[in-house]
Amino acid sequence: MKNILIALETGEKEKEAFRRAAQDAGVECAFVFTTPAAATEEEIAQACFIVGNVPPKKIAASEKLDVLQLFSAGADPYMPKGVLAEKTVLCNATGAYGQAVSEHAFAMTLMLIKKLHLYRSSQLQCRWEDHGMVTSLAGATVLIVGLGDIGLSYARLVKAMGAKVIGVKRRGGPCPEGVDELVLTEDIDRVLPQADVVMSVLPNTKETVYFYTAERFGMMKPGAVFVNCGRGNAVSHEVLLQALRNGEIAGAAIDVCETEPLPADSPLWREEKLVITPHVAGNFHHASIYEGIIGIALENFKNYLAGKPLGNVVDPATGYKR
Amino acid sequence: MKNILIALETGEKEKEAFRRAAQDAGVECAFVFTTPAAATEEEIAQACFIVGNVPPKKIAASEKLDVLQLFSAGADPYMPKGVLAEKTVLCNATGAYGQAVSEHAFAMTLMLIKKLHLYRSSQLQCRWEDHGMVTSLAGATVLIVGLGDIGLSYARLVKAMGAKVIGVKRRGGPCPEGVDELVLTEDIDRVLPQADVVMSVLPNTKETVYFYTAERFGMMKPGAVFVNCGRGNAVSHEVLLQALRNGEIAGAAIDVCETEPLPADSPLWREEKLVITPHVAGNFHHASIYEGIIGIALENFKNYLAGKPLGNVVDPATGYKR
Repeated sequence: MKNILIALETGEKEKEAFRRAAQDAGVECAFVFTTPAAATEEEIAQACFIVGNVPPKKIAASEKLDVLQLFSAGADPYMPKGVLAEKTVLCNATGAYGQAVSEHAFAMTLMLIKKLHLYRSSQLQCRWEDHGMVTSLAGATVLIVGLGDIGLSYARLVKAMGAKVIGVKRRGGPCPEGVDELVLTEDIDRVLPQADVVMSVLPNTKETVYFYTAERFGMMKPGAVFVNCGRGNAVSHEVLLQALRNGEIAGAAIDVCETEPLPADSPLWREEKLVITPHVAGNFHHASIYEGIIGIALENFKNYLAGKPLGNVVDPATGYKR
Repeated sequence: MKNILIALETGEKEKEAFRRAAQDAGVECAFVFTTPAAATEEEIAQACFIVGNVPPKKIAASEKLDVLQLFSAGADPYMPKGVLAEKTVLCNATGAYGQAVSEHAFAMTLMLIKKLHLYRSSQLQCRWEDHGMVTSLAGATVLIVGLGDIGLSYARLVKAMGAKVIGVKRRGGPCPEGVDELVLTEDIDRVLPQADVVMSVLPNTKETVYFYTAERFGMMKPGAVFVNCGRGNAVSHEVLLQALRNGEIAGAAIDVCETEPLPADSPLWREEKLVITPHVAGNFHHASIYEGIIGIALENFKNYLAGKPLGNVVDPATGYKR
């Protein structure tokens, strides 16, 4: 008998899919369907396969746990020694967020270049006022920093509007479809001055903390816009604010902040050229995310029962999918 | 000697292009470069070819005027009898606005379905608040009402994001590329209930005034969004406001109003689910518009000098390009 803990809101359809997978594999399983907050230490301690971001403390390096399948792409809280036993395989949900996050970033990009944030501000003051010329993605150069699932989906969207895409990633390799030029992260300063749009989906690693320095904003075009849908600590609030106030870039949109929730007294809220959304690009805000997570988890559950290699395994060295 | 009046801001490059066209055609021309507001009655009375929307009154059915090349797509002010002489050929600038207006409408569509207008409102109140689930254009049904240059450009944009496109136009014909289904305007009520997005670029004709009635909003999905980048009189402010307040649609974005500028005391400004931009989708706000107009005007100037048929000729029956 295997104890399976599904710590993720599920409907009858999803519950049935997990039960059927166990039946099909001919493995007797006892399921507990709960949520990360409601899962008890006892339930966690007994489970050999967990789906969901249960609190790291409650796992206590359980020796029974074979697989922890997260519903997030980031796995940071589960990386420190002592959270998981040596034997536990950690899997993330990279791939489930591509559509939703790339579309949110794309919508924010268009909002900035068409000045819809400025028109919204005017509207709320009942003012019929003209904010002047706008630009287009047609013929624009878009720099995508971080070329995972989200970055590549975003590349397809801006490409369809006629943009030239420069992709930035840690390691070299063949240039992916939809990307016109591939640049290594260490060489980004060479291409920053060319970009009309800089879209960042950098993961949270030691190398990416405060990646966008004042110097880097200084290299960007004064007409460029900056979009961050990765991690908030890629740029400090102070640096971003100064870049906007000094006119080093024309606008920015961030779905992630250095401090979340952003405190009500932060000067960021009132910066006219900055668009803020409260970490909602992913975070179960579009149906495709939940469906993607269930798909990944179910596939890994079947692999686990069949003794096959798992997908979406987190690399302990980087905290991201291998 | 032909008197040519260019009533449109021009740089040296554009002036030179017109002069060269005359030289190349071997026709002696006297050019006046001015603006619609600055053009004198005498200058207008002497001209056989005018580029620009000079005031209709000042034309006074001049018998010397062979061609009036407008820089707008709409030609309404020049349609009444007595404005132009019988012989004057009226040409518009349809084609110059497709990219700019379709992109503006597209950006507004994404703003609505990703709830960026609600997040902008929250931001201006320094509030980190969640507005819930969003939708996507992938798999959505988009109804485009008015399938001219702008409608077809918009079709390509939403199609690239995975939408199904239903095009609505006055007259039948082959289904244009990028459109999945073609419906006659008179049959629109059959497809309104299917649409997740209704995007209107109806021209200003007798048939299109108050086209979107309360009944028609009642037929739409409660989750649908309505975008108007055509003419403001396609929907009354009162009807639009009621449709939003009654929850007959989820949101709307308008670049055009029944009354422009929208009065500061209009209740539209403060309707949270409504996005308003002040007639800026076209109106020279993107470089492609000016370039497109110059291209059309120059081409027609060359055709005129060569005695060839003109392009973009306005149909007196409809007020739009034949």
